[in-house]
Amino acid sequence: MAVTTTTVAESCAAAKRAARLLASASTEAKNAALEATARLLEERSAEILEANAADLADEHAADLTVALRDRLALTPARVEAMAAGVRVVAALEDPVGEELEHRTLASGLDLRKLRVPLGVVAVVYEARPNVTIDCAALTIKSGNAIVLKGSSYAERSNGALATIVREALAEAGLPADAVTLLAGGGRDELAELATQEGLVDLLIPRGGEGLKAAIKEVATVPVMYAAAGNCHVYVHAEADLEMARRIAVNAKVQRPGVCNSAETLLIDAAIAERFAPVVLADLAEAGVELVGDERLRPLAGTIDVGAATAEDWDAEYLELKLAVAVVDSVEAAIEHVNAHGTGHSEAIVTDSEVAADEFTAGVDAAAVYVNASTRFTDGFEYGMGAEIGNSTQKLHARGPIGMRELTTFKYVARGDGQVRG
Amino acid sequence: MAVTTTTVAESCAAAKRAARLLASASTEAKNAALEATARLLEERSAEILEANAADLADEHAADLTVALRDRLALTPARVEAMAAGVRVVAALEDPVGEELEHRTLASGLDLRKLRVPLGVVAVVYEARPNVTIDCAALTIKSGNAIVLKGSSYAERSNGALATIVREALAEAGLPADAVTLLAGGGRDELAELATQEGLVDLLIPRGGEGLKAAIKEVATVPVMYAAAGNCHVYVHAEADLEMARRIAVNAKVQRPGVCNSAETLLIDAAIAERFAPVVLADLAEAGVELVGDERLRPLAGTIDVGAATAEDWDAEYLELKLAVAVVDSVEAAIEHVNAHGTGHSEAIVTDSEVAADEFTAGVDAAAVYVNASTRFTDGFEYGMGAEIGNSTQKLHARGPIGMRELTTFKYVARGDGQVRG
Repeated sequence: MAVTTTTVAESCAAAKRAARLLASASTEAKNAALEATARLLEERSAEILEANAADLADEHAADLTVALRDRLALTPARVEAMAAGVRVVAALEDPVGEELEHRTLASGLDLRKLRVPLGVVAVVYEARPNVTIDCAALTIKSGNAIVLKGSSYAERSNGALATIVREALAEAGLPADAVTLLAGGGRDELAELATQEGLVDLLIPRGGEGLKAAIKEVATVPVMYAAAGNCHVYVHAEADLEMARRIAVNAKVQRPGVCNSAETLLIDAAIAERFAPVVLADLAEAGVELVGDERLRPLAGTIDVGAATAEDWDAEYLELKLAVAVVDSVEAAIEHVNAHGTGHSEAIVTDSEVAADEFTAGVDAAAVYVNASTRFTDGFEYGMGAEIGNSTQKLHARGPIGMRELTTFKYVARGDGQVRG
Repeated sequence: MAVTTTTVAESCAAAKRAARLLASASTEAKNAALEATARLLEERSAEILEANAADLADEHAADLTVALRDRLALTPARVEAMAAGVRVVAALEDPVGEELEHRTLASGLDLRKLRVPLGVVAVVYEARPNVTIDCAALTIKSGNAIVLKGSSYAERSNGALATIVREALAEAGLPADAVTLLAGGGRDELAELATQEGLVDLLIPRGGEGLKAAIKEVATVPVMYAAAGNCHVYVHAEADLEMARRIAVNAKVQRPGVCNSAETLLIDAAIAERFAPVVLADLAEAGVELVGDERLRPLAGTIDVGAATAEDWDAEYLELKLAVAVVDSVEAAIEHVNAHGTGHSEAIVTDSEVAADEFTAGVDAAAVYVNASTRFTDGFEYGMGAEIGNSTQKLHARGPIGMRELTTFKYVARGDGQVRG
């Protein structure tokens, strides 16, 4: 079992030692560990499913909603998908050692800026066993060690999966402690993890706002928050209205529980009378609960649209509910988005290049779309192979957190005796 | 006067509005503001020097040490140097709008990753009026607004300088509030500044550990700490010992009060008997107080070397004092550096490529030098034009914080109606 009785500090110290070795591991060795992980996942699928069944059968798990049980549950196909995901990461280019800059300084020093691993990455995550494997694969390939703090609901599943990765690391001649799963524990262990300065180089909390608030209060290590999103679709006066209908519905309905789904639709006043009735009908038909501002509601006809409150514009529903407003211009749309958005993903539908440029320049967000759904903000969609989450921070990583976001750089300068005068 | 009676929050809100305009300002307009700043600094040198004389004559300033008074004092030559520094920044390439990546996604989306300003950068700094101009120039050129919180010792000098930059901005058709100097104030105002979430995109505290600790306790905005450094010089068994003498002395003595000066000298056991007496003599002659470990002290002959305590290996003296130890190998040197260093600047002196590679790969620091002094970690030396400070963080910026470190990026995706399936 990967779960041991060592303390959080001991686990992090062991991870730090492993990180030093992994930082200089060859691409071949890291890929061998990933290949072995994929193979062992397939070979020991039965063992994994058994552990998962025990997690699901635990009386503790009776608390879970149907949706949460579904996220916790593994099937042969899901284990197969994990193995396939690991092979995708193995096929990605190794980011470590990349020469980002190279120049000769006035002093004659030869200066190179080289990409290097961060060191120890800690991830705190919800009851989704596949996250164990996704995150471990990304950190191994990027030369980092990982400390995983999963949910108690998934303890047995995570234990089985972490054991497999640790065996795979050892098989490839790499330190097993590069993947360390913390034993359960509550808020105290979380606080301990968030204060391992000098040992934890980056902490990524996934999951709810409660977890994030708890970490924000105590953390002294660098934290990158995998963000929720209050995303908007703005339908401009010169939009293709058929396209706008498809995009608005897709952004809201296709997967409402994720961070890049839309929460507010902004309709330009110039086309509101024509467009509002059709898009509201589409949305209502798709089962979306609608609230609107005072300019929108009279355009709704027989469609039921509640009165939006001030809170609705800031809400991240993460469910089949949408706020709709009428705005007078691109500037007004930008102002609304910057006032209420969370800086995640924002879309404009327009045939006007001028409006598109104004919107993409004016909106302060990680990703801005022209004539496409907000739902595309995703490491896989962006060709980054996989992601640990999405960042709405502006420092270091913005948007999908992939392998390169798990690296830093180091300046290496070579001279022949240079001293400063 | 730039100093007004508005609250910190009002000042930050005004800076945010200015930042939106500066983000899309042309390179020409930003350079015009910088040229006007340089011109006004020259034209109004007398006014600046008068304000500075008043700061120095204030009874408050009687508290200052000679060194601190010198940092506060302006002269015609120093004002001229500020103007020259602004022109250097004007000549640097505009980082905003740089296309960092561009590719077509599987979905057909055209994805560009574009460099954009952070927004509002706040800098808290010591009583050095030139920092007002250096920081304002870097933020203007990188399309950011800046909120400056200087020292009360420099209040009149900073006021005169900020007034000039604001006039220059207005002359170039840019918003004066892009450079905002906060009125004095103490820890309460600092705490208010550090908690302007949504308004301040980055806070950079310069200066002492007390300031950093105070900010660490309260900050909710992103912070980048301009770091102090516990830097090492390691003299390897195969070093050119004449070069090693020069580098060790330069790294300690040339400017001991700055973060990239050396605090510990590590001497390989293989050459310690030959090298220690000569380098210790050089250092003693340069006025350096020496402390050493038990293996080093017997090699010191008649040179006075005190017994190093456990604290000495972690000390950032920032004065003419040096700790010296004998180590057995490159591995031992790396282990010492990683255990006691602050991740700033580390040097090895060696003729061995193998040792150099091992040291540069193994040491976890922003900058690693082979056969050069640690003193080169600096924005000017690195060809970055100027710097706001040095970062020992691993996220976002590591090493000199120049213009590019004051930017983030945004993904802009253009489609023709893409939705996710």
